[in-house]
Amino acid sequence: MQTHFEKELSDLKAKLLTMASYAETAVREAIEALTDRNEELARSVRQNDVVIDRFEVEVDEMAIALLAKAPLATNLRLIMVAMKISQNLERVGDEAAKIANRARDLSQEPPLKLSVDIPKMAHLALQMLKSALDSFVNQDPVAARALIPRDKEVDSLNKQIYRTLAQHMIESPDTIGRCLNLMVVSKSLERIADHATNVAEEVVYLCEAQDIRHTGKGTAGVDVVEPR
Amino acid sequence: MQTHFEKELSDLKAKLLTMASYAETAVREAIEALTDRNEELARSVRQNDVVIDRFEVEVDEMAIALLAKAPLATNLRLIMVAMKISQNLERVGDEAAKIANRARDLSQEPPLKLSVDIPKMAHLALQMLKSALDSFVNQDPVAARALIPRDKEVDSLNKQIYRTLAQHMIESPDTIGRCLNLMVVSKSLERIADHATNVAEEVVYLCEAQDIRHTGKGTAGVDVVEPR
Repeated sequence: MQTHFEKELSDLKAKLLTMASYAETAVREAIEALTDRNEELARSVRQNDVVIDRFEVEVDEMAIALLAKAPLATNLRLIMVAMKISQNLERVGDEAAKIANRARDLSQEPPLKLSVDIPKMAHLALQMLKSALDSFVNQDPVAARALIPRDKEVDSLNKQIYRTLAQHMIESPDTIGRCLNLMVVSKSLERIADHATNVAEEVVYLCEAQDIRHTGKGTAGVDVVEPR
Repeated sequence: MQTHFEKELSDLKAKLLTMASYAETAVREAIEALTDRNEELARSVRQNDVVIDRFEVEVDEMAIALLAKAPLATNLRLIMVAMKISQNLERVGDEAAKIANRARDLSQEPPLKLSVDIPKMAHLALQMLKSALDSFVNQDPVAARALIPRDKEVDSLNKQIYRTLAQHMIESPDTIGRCLNLMVVSKSLERIADHATNVAEEVVYLCEAQDIRHTGKGTAGVDVVEPR
């Protein structure tokens, strides 16, 4: 039978998963607003960000209440990791809101005649986020580790998009505003992949009690190098 | 007399302050590298970022060891806040490294004939960071609250710089690359101010056990709205 403490712990996990599904939906809808030039959807994504923000506060409250009950070392790590994951999800929500802002701006201007594969990048970033959360649910450090190098793919797509846009700006200065908006979107997606990577690193830490942040083992250079 | 636990707690605080001084130095030197076109200094900032990264891991280790000793609720909050502050400082270090990267790139190109007040923005952001850390040391929620609205000043400087640069890009497309570099620097400084604001919010939470994140009370719109 579950103790009261275990029950609270699984409530915490459940809340985190609900939060994750809100964050994923926000990103998906922000990209949809961008590709469909749907201003109304962009507005709704921005408005819904408060729901995700609220989740972060609630997860922290639950975590602190649980910590105060002096759990075992394993549970302690689980609670800490839950808080860190929630912080990353909150930032994913912020990035979605940022994308939605740019989608709104872009929907008010003529479409750019330029092919940059934002939807592909969004797909990759969302896949990473989903795998990271799955690895948390299944407490699967192997899956979490496998995901980490994929951050490089997204980084490289971001660099490619950045170069294409910078080149286009030089050739058609009248598109500079729109290109800048797309650069911000691309950078946001790159950061969403970073957050997924952070979540995966926390899962490895949780399962193996080993801190792989900043060791260069599997982490894709974090956020230090900007696209050139 | 200090108990063993209190001793460890003040060690944790001391480590956080050392970390903060490294982060501040990194930002200051990155901006110096930018204004003096000093490639060597830019390289050293990037290299020293690993030291700040290492601090984050150490603070987390100390915090987890302390948490396991089942402290009082107040101490619990202090430990959690220490971890959150350390995370923000680590990100300040990342932003400094990013600025240093851009400083290196810019030092290899002719100087821009354009006045954007990056040093003023850097000064403001660093002042905010310093005040936030002071409010933590002195456990002074009034000072922490007073600091939060100053984030708006930095946001507004960033928007102003962004507009100036975007305009310059349109007028002189040959400067697009350099203007983009400066936009990244300006955005990094704006984020450093955001991290200072986060630290201040954690101090308010610590002292008043009140979570003011995402309430709109004093927070300057977080990171959602990009410069237009």
